[in-house]
Amino acid sequence: MKVLVLGGDGFCGWPTSLHLSRRGHDVVIADNFARRAADAELGAESLTPIASLDTRLAAWHEMGGRRIGFCELNVAEDYDELAGLLLELQPDAVVHFAEQRAAPYSMKSAWHKRYTVSNNLNATNNVLAAIVDTGVDSHVVHLGTMGVYGYTAAGMTIPEGYVNVRIAADDGSDVEQEILYPTNPGSIYHMTKSQDQLLFAFYNKNDGVRVTDLHQGIVWGTQTVETELDERLINRFDYDGDYGTVLNRFLMQAAIGYPLTVHGTGGQTRAFIHIRDSVRCIDLAIEHPPVPGQRVRIFNQMTETHRVIELARLVGRLTGATVDLLENPRNEAAENELQVDNRQFLELGLEPTTLEEGLLREVTEIAERYGERCDRSKIPCRSRWTRDRQAAGRPIPAEEPAQPAPDAEPVPR
Amino acid sequence: MKVLVLGGDGFCGWPTSLHLSRRGHDVVIADNFARRAADAELGAESLTPIASLDTRLAAWHEMGGRRIGFCELNVAEDYDELAGLLLELQPDAVVHFAEQRAAPYSMKSAWHKRYTVSNNLNATNNVLAAIVDTGVDSHVVHLGTMGVYGYTAAGMTIPEGYVNVRIAADDGSDVEQEILYPTNPGSIYHMTKSQDQLLFAFYNKNDGVRVTDLHQGIVWGTQTVETELDERLINRFDYDGDYGTVLNRFLMQAAIGYPLTVHGTGGQTRAFIHIRDSVRCIDLAIEHPPVPGQRVRIFNQMTETHRVIELARLVGRLTGATVDLLENPRNEAAENELQVDNRQFLELGLEPTTLEEGLLREVTEIAERYGERCDRSKIPCRSRWTRDRQAAGRPIPAEEPAQPAPDAEPVPR
Repeated sequence: MKVLVLGGDGFCGWPTSLHLSRRGHDVVIADNFARRAADAELGAESLTPIASLDTRLAAWHEMGGRRIGFCELNVAEDYDELAGLLLELQPDAVVHFAEQRAAPYSMKSAWHKRYTVSNNLNATNNVLAAIVDTGVDSHVVHLGTMGVYGYTAAGMTIPEGYVNVRIAADDGSDVEQEILYPTNPGSIYHMTKSQDQLLFAFYNKNDGVRVTDLHQGIVWGTQTVETELDERLINRFDYDGDYGTVLNRFLMQAAIGYPLTVHGTGGQTRAFIHIRDSVRCIDLAIEHPPVPGQRVRIFNQMTETHRVIELARLVGRLTGATVDLLENPRNEAAENELQVDNRQFLELGLEPTTLEEGLLREVTEIAERYGERCDRSKIPCRSRWTRDRQAAGRPIPAEEPAQPAPDAEPVPR
Repeated sequence: MKVLVLGGDGFCGWPTSLHLSRRGHDVVIADNFARRAADAELGAESLTPIASLDTRLAAWHEMGGRRIGFCELNVAEDYDELAGLLLELQPDAVVHFAEQRAAPYSMKSAWHKRYTVSNNLNATNNVLAAIVDTGVDSHVVHLGTMGVYGYTAAGMTIPEGYVNVRIAADDGSDVEQEILYPTNPGSIYHMTKSQDQLLFAFYNKNDGVRVTDLHQGIVWGTQTVETELDERLINRFDYDGDYGTVLNRFLMQAAIGYPLTVHGTGGQTRAFIHIRDSVRCIDLAIEHPPVPGQRVRIFNQMTETHRVIELARLVGRLTGATVDLLENPRNEAAENELQVDNRQFLELGLEPTTLEEGLLREVTEIAERYGERCDRSKIPCRSRWTRDRQAAGRPIPAEEPAQPAPDAEPVPR
């Protein structure tokens, strides 16, 4: 199939593009290097030394991979270019990663909230409007998040997007309806993904746009079969307080002898998926598109749930790292249970890569190999979620980079 | 109280500003004249000859009204100015009308979809982010729409924003939860108001921002006690296919001898409110703010429901006008029932202005007085809701104005 990957230079986008290419799809990447620009803004960097996209694409071809095309564009702003690309490529699927994807980053300041809302919602709306406008019947595969559900489900398994509810009718009888699971996002970032759901539902209902929305858990690991082939293909490894995600941060902290940063009690239970499974899931979604007229299809893209403190203890046992309980910057429940339904991907043939020591060690080895590249000052999370906490005498530390103007020049790649 | 009215030059914003001023509030209007610019874009005009805002404000003061301040700014774009205005004014309430508010306009083209999404969501997010950012504890009063609910409620009264549902838990018992009424918007415009709800819920939960969201019915009428005082204070009267709303369009069509344009069977039941009640409701909401810590308060701002065909017949009986059944451009149910709960405003003392002949005649008289200003070519609705209909050989008529570039110069006021 022909696949357009929006945001194909990022942490999920890059290994997905390679995996789809190896699976025989014709892949074109569109990206504006916003993720690399955020690194420059934050003074942070991937722990692994990622090559420029030009180098990555050349290396992939050199290693025998199919040619992957590239178009530099801002999906949220360059509508005409996006529509032109759709008309030119007529892709079977558009994989939409072109959103700001870090919750702490989205809460850093008013500028970051505004950037996240404007970028994410305009990007999604542009993709959908362009599909209707051009008449190109691409299947949209969107990376959403488990976080849209919130983490307060009392005694029930989180279903795949839709839930049956009963409502009392005026005559005392029950009305039964299937509705989108009511969202309870915990950050501006998560909120935009909840708002994306309404965009998908509308364009699907009104225009029949075919959409698969993947509610992804926290991704861990860094390498896939494809990115391991050559060092120039290596994937990002984020460890900073904004873009680093919990398990990868623990593994990297252990590798460099930094105490594991647990926010709050660590009683939070979250859903996880290894990057290798993430790219497989996207391929499965593309190869099994919704039929015409089908409502928005929602898959929970996760393979297991874990309590954060238990992950920290596991990493501690494997590596001897100590655990540091820090004040939680997030406005969230200290503890929660979490059961998640992920039947649909299992039925499509996904064989989950679960947390096991071998893979944990592999990640730790990568972290050790590039440990000298770590800037320890970037490890703490400095976002303050609420105005109360911002006002409570915790000024933003001096090393915090100044916020860029909205029209700041992008970083050269 | 000090009240900042965002979008205070528009159809609801202007009479609201005058009413609040007469009620003794200190009012400042912020507006970017987007509504006047849309008139220029569409080649349409208010049937009533509206004065420039400067003239309006001077006339109000001349008639003995309190001074109303004005700041020209784009709420969706001029964040720093908006935050500065909040700091300077420290308003008790911010009334947020600064959104593109026409469903057909939002469906005209990809450009109009994109403008509506970007403008409406960035405006709402900017207001909320600025309140958190500045620490000014203003009560946000937002104009939402009954349309977020959709019109498919089967046998149940539409509640005021929240609904109790029961969900089956894993152990077979029932979990009861109060959730936001699941939305089912029928246009991009209505969808943005559904997305606004998620913004309000998030900022309320995370930062304690106090919000009243008014789910307004279709407004009819044009004049209020205040706008009637002088012709320079006259309110807008929209009759074109984009911004004109159903009952006002019928009354104006009757006045000029144009057949009443009923879309589809006219079996659609909708909620209505007279502009006089609309401005009173906003004053009631401001004078009874939510307490600190209160969740987002949602009121249904409507006073009665009517079936469209019955309204057409009523106007026909009063005026002798004929009824024209036209193909419905909207992708909506041909017929629906509608019961709506509006107890909260009644409890706050609202005395509904219901549809009666006297008021209908008053509107018709205004339409007759300015009938010579009518451009009959602007009456038909030319928006095509879906790509199927757009593709079905109905090209956009030649008189359709070219869509403006996003950075088109605003129309001088």
